[in-house]
Amino acid sequence: MALLVQKFGGTSVGSVDRIEKVAEKVRKFRDQGDDIVVVVSAMSGETNRLISLANEIMEEPTAREMDVLVSTGEQVTIALLCMALHKRGVAARSYTGPQVRILTDDSHTKARILDIDNHNIQADLSAGRVVVVAGFQGVDESGNITTLGRGGSDTTAVALAAALKADECQIYTDVDGVYTTDPRVVDSARRLDTITFEEMLEMASLGSKVLQIRSVEFAGKYNVPLRVLHSFQEGPGTLITIEDDDNMEQPIVSGIAFNRDEAKLTIAGVPDIPGVASKILKPVSDANIEVDMIVQNVGADNHTDFTFTVHRNDFKKAQAILVRLSEELEAKEVKGDDKIAKVSIVGVGMRSHAGVASKMFEALSVEGINIQMISTSEIKVSVVIDEKYLELAVRSLHSAFELSEKPA
Amino acid sequence: MALLVQKFGGTSVGSVDRIEKVAEKVRKFRDQGDDIVVVVSAMSGETNRLISLANEIMEEPTAREMDVLVSTGEQVTIALLCMALHKRGVAARSYTGPQVRILTDDSHTKARILDIDNHNIQADLSAGRVVVVAGFQGVDESGNITTLGRGGSDTTAVALAAALKADECQIYTDVDGVYTTDPRVVDSARRLDTITFEEMLEMASLGSKVLQIRSVEFAGKYNVPLRVLHSFQEGPGTLITIEDDDNMEQPIVSGIAFNRDEAKLTIAGVPDIPGVASKILKPVSDANIEVDMIVQNVGADNHTDFTFTVHRNDFKKAQAILVRLSEELEAKEVKGDDKIAKVSIVGVGMRSHAGVASKMFEALSVEGINIQMISTSEIKVSVVIDEKYLELAVRSLHSAFELSEKPA
Repeated sequence: MALLVQKFGGTSVGSVDRIEKVAEKVRKFRDQGDDIVVVVSAMSGETNRLISLANEIMEEPTAREMDVLVSTGEQVTIALLCMALHKRGVAARSYTGPQVRILTDDSHTKARILDIDNHNIQADLSAGRVVVVAGFQGVDESGNITTLGRGGSDTTAVALAAALKADECQIYTDVDGVYTTDPRVVDSARRLDTITFEEMLEMASLGSKVLQIRSVEFAGKYNVPLRVLHSFQEGPGTLITIEDDDNMEQPIVSGIAFNRDEAKLTIAGVPDIPGVASKILKPVSDANIEVDMIVQNVGADNHTDFTFTVHRNDFKKAQAILVRLSEELEAKEVKGDDKIAKVSIVGVGMRSHAGVASKMFEALSVEGINIQMISTSEIKVSVVIDEKYLELAVRSLHSAFELSEKPA
Repeated sequence: MALLVQKFGGTSVGSVDRIEKVAEKVRKFRDQGDDIVVVVSAMSGETNRLISLANEIMEEPTAREMDVLVSTGEQVTIALLCMALHKRGVAARSYTGPQVRILTDDSHTKARILDIDNHNIQADLSAGRVVVVAGFQGVDESGNITTLGRGGSDTTAVALAAALKADECQIYTDVDGVYTTDPRVVDSARRLDTITFEEMLEMASLGSKVLQIRSVEFAGKYNVPLRVLHSFQEGPGTLITIEDDDNMEQPIVSGIAFNRDEAKLTIAGVPDIPGVASKILKPVSDANIEVDMIVQNVGADNHTDFTFTVHRNDFKKAQAILVRLSEELEAKEVKGDDKIAKVSIVGVGMRSHAGVASKMFEALSVEGINIQMISTSEIKVSVVIDEKYLELAVRSLHSAFELSEKPA
């Protein structure tokens, strides 16, 4: 008998019919004797409907009232799911975020959880009830309703699992686990039985949108076993684990992540003196443009080239800033390219294995793919290439690191 | 400078456009220097939409979860109205029932208000903010969300006005006041400037659906001046007042109420002995059938006839019960008629004036209208007549009591 926190997202509860299916699933676990806390999102489309209503009134509605408005979405779902459980003879009780008392700071629309009072939930579990909690929302010290921002239901589930010392936090989604890479690009992409928190973080931030990054960080920090599963298909999913240092069988590379949302900008021929990098990046960050990769190579003749990537939506804005800067810095030229893609290999095994990067570069060179930028961290190597080679690059790397085969 | 509690119902906030109009109205009062607490219902149609979702799952959903579900309706409105006020530069803050702390008993879907904590609202008013409160909802001692039942937003408004000692509680509706009778039946029906709480209660329970009865009782009990006004038309509305004993100008009859929702049942020739009335009514009330008028005349030969009215929807059910009873009581026969109407004259002036009933009966007899049942209270006389004479009866009474003319 285990204590499970199960989270179902907006698509999984997107209609009364699906809510009934979720209730059926929960009932089965309950029948096995597990204690269950369910966390649910708003029915898909509902949050957008509410935001549209607000935007009919104001383009940027007051954050406090926005939270009052959108938090109704999950409140509807918890009530309907409890009814569907009652229909099946399963004792259940719903809680909004404020009712649990999920205490957050007062940063409306992007609040952070400070504390969870698990007193009510524990009492219900002891009484044999399934507890259904509204994800994504909490309450601040003054009693104002807050929300954790989009995708915050994952964070609610993980935080509840930590507070309740649950045996597992199960995130039900529309995929049956985490894959070595996107199966739409590589046919032989394989579901991973396990992946470490660090790898998952790298995979998530690189565009594998299975889990919200914050919830993975949170799970890692509080040591909550996290599992990704399919809402309506049977299967073991992927367990996200603490790295096991003793595990010699750790594969070198666990997966290939990629994205094509970025654009590349270069300001060439700037003076190679201290303070230039910050002179370039400050106006970019002041304009609220997030920078991802940054590369500066060793210069020549006291001059150097400075390259970075931004989201494609910010390409034109960033380019205009650099053109302005280039006069001030007497730079040679500003170059830009928004037809690029980033491909990364991720794996904690890299730490103890040399030669991973060179194997990656060789695989790409065999296919005649030119590498435009390189950036590395302890457990990942990312390259920027011409967008048109993206699928080819991912397939060749997937094959080079033998990701289709299950490690022994 | 007055403290006003203003309540806007579902139709008045039925679209973003109407919410903006309400905000405009509130802004004008605010500009005059009044302190304003606004109570709103769910946008029209929203409560029914939520109930339909629940009914897709269960015919009789759990009451606790029903309250969690439907209370989201008003929560959406308070957020949108605050945004519309902010857009106009009016400082405003929203409160759900639980956030105010409108404490109720735990009778889900039909809870009663026990106490209101006005601490938060007072602080906001002192800070110059408009306070927007979700009607219809509260919270019980254990923190469960409760609702006051349909139309409960009126009750919320009156209870808040009492707790805050407001100068006036204004109920905005789709009519511009309380009329001497339904203007669709009598062209010359006149809006009353004032009406007493008692008269309003009789008018409301007899089918003038302007205000919820509970809210009128509440206002009378706590001496809250209540005014009914039109949401989107200018005008003084009707003020509902405490009866002024010194007012010699009190009209004898204030209005004519009527309804055609009832049916009449007679069990004839039952033994005229103690206990028969309760023997007849107990099984009816056990079947959850509400009885309105009850008439039993002096009997003859130790036998009597017993007549009462029920809602037309319950006619067949009540008839079946009486047929069953008639054997047991050895009654002569059971008669029924669902083509009846009830017409009543209402007025606190009746107390001190004799001859009001006879004037009523005379007016009906002049038109050849036969009276089937009569029932009286201190401030009203009701008669049951053939449904087809309803309009004629109302018009002739309206004219006989000179209701089109404003009293001197």
